[in-house]
Amino acid sequence: MISFESDYNNGCHEAILRRLVETNDDRATGYGLDDYCAAARDKVRQACGKPEADVYFLVGGTQTNATVIDAMLQSYQGVLSVETGHINVHESGAIEFGGHKVLALPSHDGRMDAGELNQWLHDFYADPTFDHMVFPGMVYITFATEMGTIYTRAQLQAISDTCRKYDLPLFIDGARLGYGLMAEGCDITLEQLADMCDVFYLGGTKCGAYCGEAVVFPRNNAPAHFFTIIKQHGALMAKGRLLGIQFDVLMQDDLYFKIARHAVRQAMRLREAFVARGYEMYSDSPTNQQFVLLDQETIKRLAEDFVFEQWFPVGDKMNCRFVTSWATRTEDVDALISAL
Amino acid sequence: MISFESDYNNGCHEAILRRLVETNDDRATGYGLDDYCAAARDKVRQACGKPEADVYFLVGGTQTNATVIDAMLQSYQGVLSVETGHINVHESGAIEFGGHKVLALPSHDGRMDAGELNQWLHDFYADPTFDHMVFPGMVYITFATEMGTIYTRAQLQAISDTCRKYDLPLFIDGARLGYGLMAEGCDITLEQLADMCDVFYLGGTKCGAYCGEAVVFPRNNAPAHFFTIIKQHGALMAKGRLLGIQFDVLMQDDLYFKIARHAVRQAMRLREAFVARGYEMYSDSPTNQQFVLLDQETIKRLAEDFVFEQWFPVGDKMNCRFVTSWATRTEDVDALISAL
Amino acid sequence: MISFESDYNNGCHEAILRRLVETNDDRATGYGLDDYCAAARDKVRQACGKPEADVYFLVGGTQTNATVIDAMLQSYQGVLSVETGHINVHESGAIEFGGHKVLALPSHDGRMDAGELNQWLHDFYADPTFDHMVFPGMVYITFATEMGTIYTRAQLQAISDTCRKYDLPLFIDGARLGYGLMAEGCDITLEQLADMCDVFYLGGTKCGAYCGEAVVFPRNNAPAHFFTIIKQHGALMAKGRLLGIQFDVLMQDDLYFKIARHAVRQAMRLREAFVARGYEMYSDSPTNQQFVLLDQETIKRLAEDFVFEQWFPVGDKMNCRFVTSWATRTEDVDALISAL
Amino acid sequence: MISFESDYNNGCHEAILRRLVETNDDRATGYGLDDYCAAARDKVRQACGKPEADVYFLVGGTQTNATVIDAMLQSYQGVLSVETGHINVHESGAIEFGGHKVLALPSHDGRMDAGELNQWLHDFYADPTFDHMVFPGMVYITFATEMGTIYTRAQLQAISDTCRKYDLPLFIDGARLGYGLMAEGCDITLEQLADMCDVFYLGGTKCGAYCGEAVVFPRNNAPAHFFTIIKQHGALMAKGRLLGIQFDVLMQDDLYFKIARHAVRQAMRLREAFVARGYEMYSDSPTNQQFVLLDQETIKRLAEDFVFEQWFPVGDKMNCRFVTSWATRTEDVDALISAL
Repeated sequence: MISFESDYNNGCHEAILRRLVETNDDRATGYGLDDYCAAARDKVRQACGKPEADVYFLVGGTQTNATVIDAMLQSYQGVLSVETGHINVHESGAIEFGGHKVLALPSHDGRMDAGELNQWLHDFYADPTFDHMVFPGMVYITFATEMGTIYTRAQLQAISDTCRKYDLPLFIDGARLGYGLMAEGCDITLEQLADMCDVFYLGGTKCGAYCGEAVVFPRNNAPAHFFTIIKQHGALMAKGRLLGIQFDVLMQDDLYFKIARHAVRQAMRLREAFVARGYEMYSDSPTNQQFVLLDQETIKRLAEDFVFEQWFPVGDKMNCRFVTSWATRTEDVDALISAL
Repeated sequence: MISFESDYNNGCHEAILRRLVETNDDRATGYGLDDYCAAARDKVRQACGKPEADVYFLVGGTQTNATVIDAMLQSYQGVLSVETGHINVHESGAIEFGGHKVLALPSHDGRMDAGELNQWLHDFYADPTFDHMVFPGMVYITFATEMGTIYTRAQLQAISDTCRKYDLPLFIDGARLGYGLMAEGCDITLEQLADMCDVFYLGGTKCGAYCGEAVVFPRNNAPAHFFTIIKQHGALMAKGRLLGIQFDVLMQDDLYFKIARHAVRQAMRLREAFVARGYEMYSDSPTNQQFVLLDQETIKRLAEDFVFEQWFPVGDKMNCRFVTSWATRTEDVDALISAL
Repeated sequence: MISFESDYNNGCHEAILRRLVETNDDRATGYGLDDYCAAARDKVRQACGKPEADVYFLVGGTQTNATVIDAMLQSYQGVLSVETGHINVHESGAIEFGGHKVLALPSHDGRMDAGELNQWLHDFYADPTFDHMVFPGMVYITFATEMGTIYTRAQLQAISDTCRKYDLPLFIDGARLGYGLMAEGCDITLEQLADMCDVFYLGGTKCGAYCGEAVVFPRNNAPAHFFTIIKQHGALMAKGRLLGIQFDVLMQDDLYFKIARHAVRQAMRLREAFVARGYEMYSDSPTNQQFVLLDQETIKRLAEDFVFEQWFPVGDKMNCRFVTSWATRTEDVDALISAL
Repeated sequence: MISFESDYNNGCHEAILRRLVETNDDRATGYGLDDYCAAARDKVRQACGKPEADVYFLVGGTQTNATVIDAMLQSYQGVLSVETGHINVHESGAIEFGGHKVLALPSHDGRMDAGELNQWLHDFYADPTFDHMVFPGMVYITFATEMGTIYTRAQLQAISDTCRKYDLPLFIDGARLGYGLMAEGCDITLEQLADMCDVFYLGGTKCGAYCGEAVVFPRNNAPAHFFTIIKQHGALMAKGRLLGIQFDVLMQDDLYFKIARHAVRQAMRLREAFVARGYEMYSDSPTNQQFVLLDQETIKRLAEDFVFEQWFPVGDKMNCRFVTSWATRTEDVDALISAL
C-alpha cells in the first residue's frame, strides 16, 4: 500500500533523525533553555529576516493555536476566523475552553476575504448594542488553508491592512506554512509574511519533523510572560531540546522549504494527471493537498493499492483527499498516476 | 562537567533511539490510532495486570495532570493535593485555568497523610456552609513525591480506603513512577498500585523517553470521550506513533523498571557517600532524587565539575538536589563521591 | 414621551411592590431558603403541573443561561442554538467564558427548524472526524424568540423529539415566556412546554418583576449540586426572598399570564394599526415585540412623542421595534395609533 | 424570635422602599444607563472625594469579586488573599471558575499582614522556578474582615505600600464596608481608603439595600470595556435602576454610614454585655459581627428566643455569631442582654 493519507503519517526527515542520534548523549537544560533551541531560534529569525523576533517552540498545532490566542486576547474578546478554520472545526473547542468565542466569517475555499472582514468590523462597531457582544480581538487565518489554497500577496496585504486599521493582531496558522510558501504561484516570501502579521508559526509536524511548531512574534512583541502561559497550557516540553534539534536541522540550508517544494512538485504532477484523465478537482489547490471528486467504483479500485481519505460527498461523487509530503517518493506518485 | 541537574536533561534511552530509526520509514495513522500505540497499550495493560485498562499516551506531565483532572471533575469540584504537590506549585495554574481549585492539605516530605485527608473530608461535610464551598472531587498524589519520598503500601492503602469511603477517585501522578516503584524499600507492586487508584500514569519523560506519559484507567473507567478531551487540551499528538514506539520499547522486557532500578542504585551510592562524609540530608529519599544541605564553599567547589540545582536555603546552608537517571553512569557517581 | 423602548424599562408590577412593602420588616433566612421562595416554588410547580419539579430563582437572563448551560454540559460539549439566539449574540460570550462553544444553526425569524437540527446531528455523527470536534450537548431555543415569533406545538414537539432521539436535553429560554404562551394563536400550554423540554425558565425581569428568572427542571432532574453551581456563577442572591416574593405574587391567581395577555393584546392593536396604515412589518410577530419598517421621516416624526429602538437598516428603511409590556396603558397605544 | 442571624435577613431600609414606591411608574433605560444610576454614581464619587472615579453597580458580593478579579488579572496571574478570605472559602470556586488561582497567605483574625505579604512577594521573585508558577496579579482584602476585624490606617497603608512596590493592584472587598468604617476605633476615612487601593466596593446587600454593590475605581482606572466584562459574567442587571435607586438613597445625607453606625453601636452594647457576664469572646471585633464562645446549655437556652449561627467548635464550646444590622432595634439587643 502506498499512502497519500496525510502529511503526518511518517516518522521524521532523515537529517533530523541523524541529528537526534548524534546528540542523544549530550546533556542539556530543560524547557527550551538549551543551546539547540537557541541555535534554532537564531536560524528562524534569520529565515524571517527578523533579528529581533521572539521565537518559541511548542509541540502541536491545536496547542499552539490555543496558547497563542489565549495569550493575545483580553477576556471579553473573541477571534475572527473563517467558518472552515481549524480552530472553528477540528480543535474540539480548545479556543472556547480558554474562554473565547470564535467569530466565524464566510470561507472562500478556506480563505478569508479582506472586504468581508472589513465589513464585519464596520458593522460591529456600528451596532448600538456592540458592548453586549463579544469584541473582535484578533484575526486568525491559515496559510496554506485547510482546503489547500493560499493567499496572494495582495490578498494577505489587504487582510493585514484591515487588521491594522482596526488595531487587531493578525495570527497566521502555519501548520503547513512550508507547503504554502512553496506553492505553485505563491508570490509571498517568508519575510513579507512576517511583516504582514503579528504572530505566525512554522509548522514542523506536517513539514518534516516528528513534532513541533515554531511560534514567531516578528517584532519582539511576544505577550508578557509567554513562557508561563505556555506552561499553563501544558505546552512546555521538559526536553525542549527535542524541538530545538528538529528546527535547527529544518532551518539549516533551507531544508524546511526544500522538502516542502518537493512535496508540492509531486502534488502538481498528481493534479495534472487527474485533470488530464478528466477527473473533476474539488478545489484548485496549488499545495500538497489535492482534492478530487471520485465515483465509488474508482475509489474502490484505487483503494486496493493506495491509502487516501474520503472527505464528504459532493453530488453522487466523493471528495477525496490525496496528500503528498517531504516523504512522498516520485515512484509513489508514478504508481498512482498509472493507476488512474 | 558531569550533570546531576535533572532526570530530563538527556536524550532518550538507546533502545528507543534504535527503534525510532528502524521504524522511521513506516507509514502509520495519526492520533494514537497506529499499531505501535496498540502494541504499547497491550504491554502497559500486561505490566499492570489489568487487561481491561484504558491506556492513553500524552506528551508531558503538566498537560497530563490538567487533562485527567479536568476530565474527572465536575465543574463545582476541586482536587485535593498536598501543598507541595506539583499541580499546586509548578504548573503555572494549569488546574485553575481549567476552572478547578486545588484544595491543599499539609505535606509530609511530599506525602499526604490519610488521617488528615479523612479529617478534612469529615470537616467539610460537617460544615453547615459546605454548599457555598468547593466540593472535593478527587485526590491527587505523586509517587515518587517531589521530595523523592514514597508511600508504603499501608500508607497508600489508607489513602485509597479514605477515597473510596468518600467516593472520590484517586489519581496518582507517576511522572517518576519507575523510580518510585524501584525505590529502596518500596513494598508496592505496579499491579497493587493500579488496584488502589482510579487513574495513574507511567511517566516516560523522566524515565527514559524523549517525551510521553502513559495514562492508565485500570478498570475500563476512562471518562466518556476522553480522546476528545485530550484534543481539547491540545494534548493529542498528531504523530502519536512517537509516543507509542517509546512506550512499546520501555514496556518490553521490563526495560522501564530496569533503568529506574539502575538510577536508584546510583542514587543510593550517592546518599551513602554523603552520609558517610557527614553531610546532612534534607530528606530521607529512597529514590533517584537526593537532597543534601551544603555550605557555600562546598557548593562552589563541587560546581566546578558537577551540575546540580540549589533549591532553597535551610539555615545557613543550601538544600541542593542531585538527580540520577537511567543515563547516569557508574563512573559519574564515582567521580562525585571522590570529590565530596 | 411615551415609551415602547423595551419591556424592562419600568419598575415592577404594583402587586409585587405592595407585597415588598408588606413583607419588608420580616426576617428570613438567606440564599433562597426562606418561606417566600418555598411558596413561590410550589406555585411554579402547580402552574406547570409538575409537582416534582426542581425550581431555582436566579437574577437575570444571561446569568441564568450561562449557569444552566454550564451545569448541564460536559466539558467537551457545546450548545446548539440558532445564529440569532441570545446566547450567540448578546451575552458577551458568557457561554464561551464557561468553556463551551455555541454551535450555530440557521435562524428562521428566530426559530430553529427541527429538520435542520436533525440533519446537523446526523451529519455530525456521520463525519469520521467527529471526535476532533465539539460534541453537541444540549439544544437551546427561546420562547418567544428574539424576533417576537413563537413555535407551534407541532414545531416544538418535533424539536423535542429530535433532542430525545439524540439524547440531548432541551433548554427553553423563557425570558419572555409569558408573552410567548399568551401570544395570538399559541397552541401550547405551560404544562405541555414543560413536558417537551428538560429545563426552562419563567422570565420575571421582562414580565412584571424587578428582576428574577424561575428555572424549572420539570422532572426532579436538576444537575447535582445545582445550588453550588449557582453560587459559583455569582448568581446566588443573598436576600433570595426578593426573588421569592416577586414570583410568589406573579404566580398567584395567574397574574403572570394575565399581564402578559394584556401586553400581547396591546401589541396586536398596534400591529393591526401599522398594517391598516400600510406599513410593512419586518416579521409577523404574535407577541409583545413588533418590528416595522419605517422611513426616516416617519421615524423623526414619531420620535417626537414616542421612544422606540431602531434596530438595523433594511433597504432604505429602518427596522424599528415597538415593545409593549404589562405596564403599557391602553391610552399609550391609542396615542401611538393616532400618530401613525 | 429575635434574629441576630445575619445582616441580610431583612428587606431594605425604609427610605429605599419609599423611593422604590415613588419611582415605580417612571420609565428608564436599562443596564445602568438611567438617571438614577447617574445620580448615585455622582454621590458615590463625592462620598469618596474622587470626582474622576469610575463607578459600577453589581448585584452581589461573590459576583462582584469574580468580575473585578477576572477583569484585572492577566491569564497567568492569581490573586493574593488570606486563607479565610471570602474568595478562598465561601464562593464555591468562583475565582477558579474564571481561571485564576487564589494564592493564600496566613490570616490574622481575618487580616493580612503587610510584612508577610512583602516576604511572600520577595520569596516568589527570588525563586529560580517562579516562571513555572502562578504570578501574583493583585491583592484582595476584606474590610471589615469575615472575622469582624478591621485594619488600622497604618496597617492598610503598609499593605498599600507593598502593593505599589510590587506594582500590584489592591482590591478591597467592602461587602461590610459601612460597618468597617464606622467600627469602634476605626481611624480610616472612606477617602483615605480610596486613596490606598485601586478598586473597592461599597456593599449594599449587607448595609441596608435589598441587593447591590457599588464598585469604585477611584482614579478613572476601570479596566477597558468593564461594562462588557460585567455582562459576560452575567452581572449586568437589565433594570439597573433597581441598583441606582438604592444607592442614590443610601448615599443621600450619609444614610449608608448612619445606619452602619447604629448597627455597630448595638453590637458594642452586646459585646460589653457578653464580657460583663464573663463570656469569652472568640475575636475582638469592633464591628457588627460578634463572635462569642458559648456552652451547649447556654446555646439551648438562648436559642429559644433568639436566632444566631453556630460557626464551629472551639474546645468544648461553640463559636457563635451574633450579627446586628441597620435593622436591629435597641429593644432586640436589650432583650438579648437580659437573657444572657
